[in-house]
Amino acid sequence: MRDPLLLTPGPLTTSLATKTAMLHDWGSWDKDFNHLTAQVRQKLVELIDGQGTHTCVPLQGSGTFAVEAAIGTLMPRGGKLLCLVNGAYGKRIAQLTEVMGRRVTVKDFGESKAVDAEAVAVCLAQDDEITHVAVVYCETSTGILNPMEAISAAVAAAGKKLIIDAMSAFGALSISTAKLTFDAVIASSNKCLEGVPGMGFVLANIQSLEQAKGNSHSLSLDLHDQWQYMERTGQWRYTPPTHVLAALASALHQYDQEGGQAARLARYTENCQQLISGINGLGLRSFLAPEIQAPIIVTVHAPVHPNWQFNEFYQLTKDEGVVLYPGKLTDAETFRVGCIGAIGKAEIAMAIDAMARAFKQMGIETAAL
Amino acid sequence: MRDPLLLTPGPLTTSLATKTAMLHDWGSWDKDFNHLTAQVRQKLVELIDGQGTHTCVPLQGSGTFAVEAAIGTLMPRGGKLLCLVNGAYGKRIAQLTEVMGRRVTVKDFGESKAVDAEAVAVCLAQDDEITHVAVVYCETSTGILNPMEAISAAVAAAGKKLIIDAMSAFGALSISTAKLTFDAVIASSNKCLEGVPGMGFVLANIQSLEQAKGNSHSLSLDLHDQWQYMERTGQWRYTPPTHVLAALASALHQYDQEGGQAARLARYTENCQQLISGINGLGLRSFLAPEIQAPIIVTVHAPVHPNWQFNEFYQLTKDEGVVLYPGKLTDAETFRVGCIGAIGKAEIAMAIDAMARAFKQMGIETAAL
Repeated sequence: MRDPLLLTPGPLTTSLATKTAMLHDWGSWDKDFNHLTAQVRQKLVELIDGQGTHTCVPLQGSGTFAVEAAIGTLMPRGGKLLCLVNGAYGKRIAQLTEVMGRRVTVKDFGESKAVDAEAVAVCLAQDDEITHVAVVYCETSTGILNPMEAISAAVAAAGKKLIIDAMSAFGALSISTAKLTFDAVIASSNKCLEGVPGMGFVLANIQSLEQAKGNSHSLSLDLHDQWQYMERTGQWRYTPPTHVLAALASALHQYDQEGGQAARLARYTENCQQLISGINGLGLRSFLAPEIQAPIIVTVHAPVHPNWQFNEFYQLTKDEGVVLYPGKLTDAETFRVGCIGAIGKAEIAMAIDAMARAFKQMGIETAAL
Repeated sequence: MRDPLLLTPGPLTTSLATKTAMLHDWGSWDKDFNHLTAQVRQKLVELIDGQGTHTCVPLQGSGTFAVEAAIGTLMPRGGKLLCLVNGAYGKRIAQLTEVMGRRVTVKDFGESKAVDAEAVAVCLAQDDEITHVAVVYCETSTGILNPMEAISAAVAAAGKKLIIDAMSAFGALSISTAKLTFDAVIASSNKCLEGVPGMGFVLANIQSLEQAKGNSHSLSLDLHDQWQYMERTGQWRYTPPTHVLAALASALHQYDQEGGQAARLARYTENCQQLISGINGLGLRSFLAPEIQAPIIVTVHAPVHPNWQFNEFYQLTKDEGVVLYPGKLTDAETFRVGCIGAIGKAEIAMAIDAMARAFKQMGIETAAL
């Protein structure tokens, strides 16, 4: 039997080439591995046009670890964060900032609206203690695309520092120092770059990072220390996830071969359009307005039907080799379908077919919804 | 060309079965993956005879992340740690405790002596503010074996809690709740269990963990929150390193097939004896007294010879497919050779031969040392 298709927001379906890159053991002290690390770091900096201004600091752990490390390191202990929230991942940034004992204020835009840059400007004008602003580029809990250029402009105009959680955007949506001003962009190996999970990375403004010594609340999550050690030795400070990095290096090579960010965005956009149109064909509606739908993950309103049960639907589609994702909304019954990973037309068609048959088996006439 | 042999303390040489276990993508929300997580957790608890008293909390990141999480979570903010040091890893525990802002006092035994349990008892008698004691089971920076039963007895007699960094010991050296009393034992996937790097785990006393809510200085490293979420949902709190966990599950299966801890210890002990005897045959001496040498990694005095240069030696042995490890001592010129990983007699013999030829090429007559 084939492996199931992961229509999830990461971990996701990776190519066989990416997975087979893990069939070697690397010495973490060895210069071949240092070279691999340096290559990946350089490539990631190039992806944001950050040569000379930004540096890449990879970090062991999940993306959340890298977000916590970025805020804990780049924001001084006396700083204050304005956290722009329109979903679970924005909320998590506020939570991790609170746990580390720093000041944080939240501006919540609800679960179905994009962050409003004008409202951000108002917040910044009202509270001059704010030093940093955090925002999620694509809020994976729904799939909302936030208007990064407008937000970046508002934050820069107020003279504040911007920290962008680009977890599920990086590699697919455009992020360039030519259009955005930021202290840090954070992402992980296992989303739109199509690597495997196990590491995150922070693309940090070099000047800000240089001034960040001693800020961190945690040794493991001290990005300044991680960076200094890496610059000095070429090595990771603590045991790196060697196989995960090798997979990411391979995934980045494939990314270039595909045509880079433009090609990846085009493929995901096609996946997303085909998915939404297929879902509409089943009589279902996607949750977000089209103008704020990122081509990353689609939140779908569950059928309003007495037979609806996500767990049964999940199992039926999985039996056909398609793994979907639960909703993450507090107010609406939804499920989610990812557009990202090493997938294209054939896989999206397969997913739509599997959903159609699952509804039929559940006795849910979706066309009537 | 074959992959080089990693005679390093982890990442190390893993079996092909372990690596090929990474050729699948797992949905992190899926019950198949939850089942894999539950299996691994249960197996790790069984390895310390901890059923009913201890629970396994896996954590993303390197082993150091898990050590920091254990101390940050299990030691109350008002607690005070006595850190027993005889090498770099003991020092790191003191450092990470300081960075998180907790009180820590260090008892240093130097780099060539085991921790002395009687001295520990004296320390504890002199400072009743100490609540917790941390010690490294096998200090990987030299290979020293610390007397865990005596240390555990001294700590328990004083009514204090013990936290054991068993990073390079776990799976090979005996750790049982029948002989040791501890709040936590910490290890990682990529040492004596012979998995790949990318996650650590803490085997924590359940009562202590239950009382640890709100202690953590970090959301990502909050072991209590990680545990509660996992117990409630079967899932990891944040994106897990799915491929790394799958590799560990395979490695644990192979561990059982080999005969468990006794068999693994026997193989490593043979590796270590063969290595030391081969090194002696080259005219070199190992750094540690035999009675405190753990069968994990051997620190070797570098030849006292004008031609000696570690980097050249490293490259020459690597050219023969053998990756060695630099020394980590402040006072003595040494290098290290690991005894652990998916290696046996043939690999140790190959390593000795490669070292002999490297010395010859460097014009170092080791027999004369």
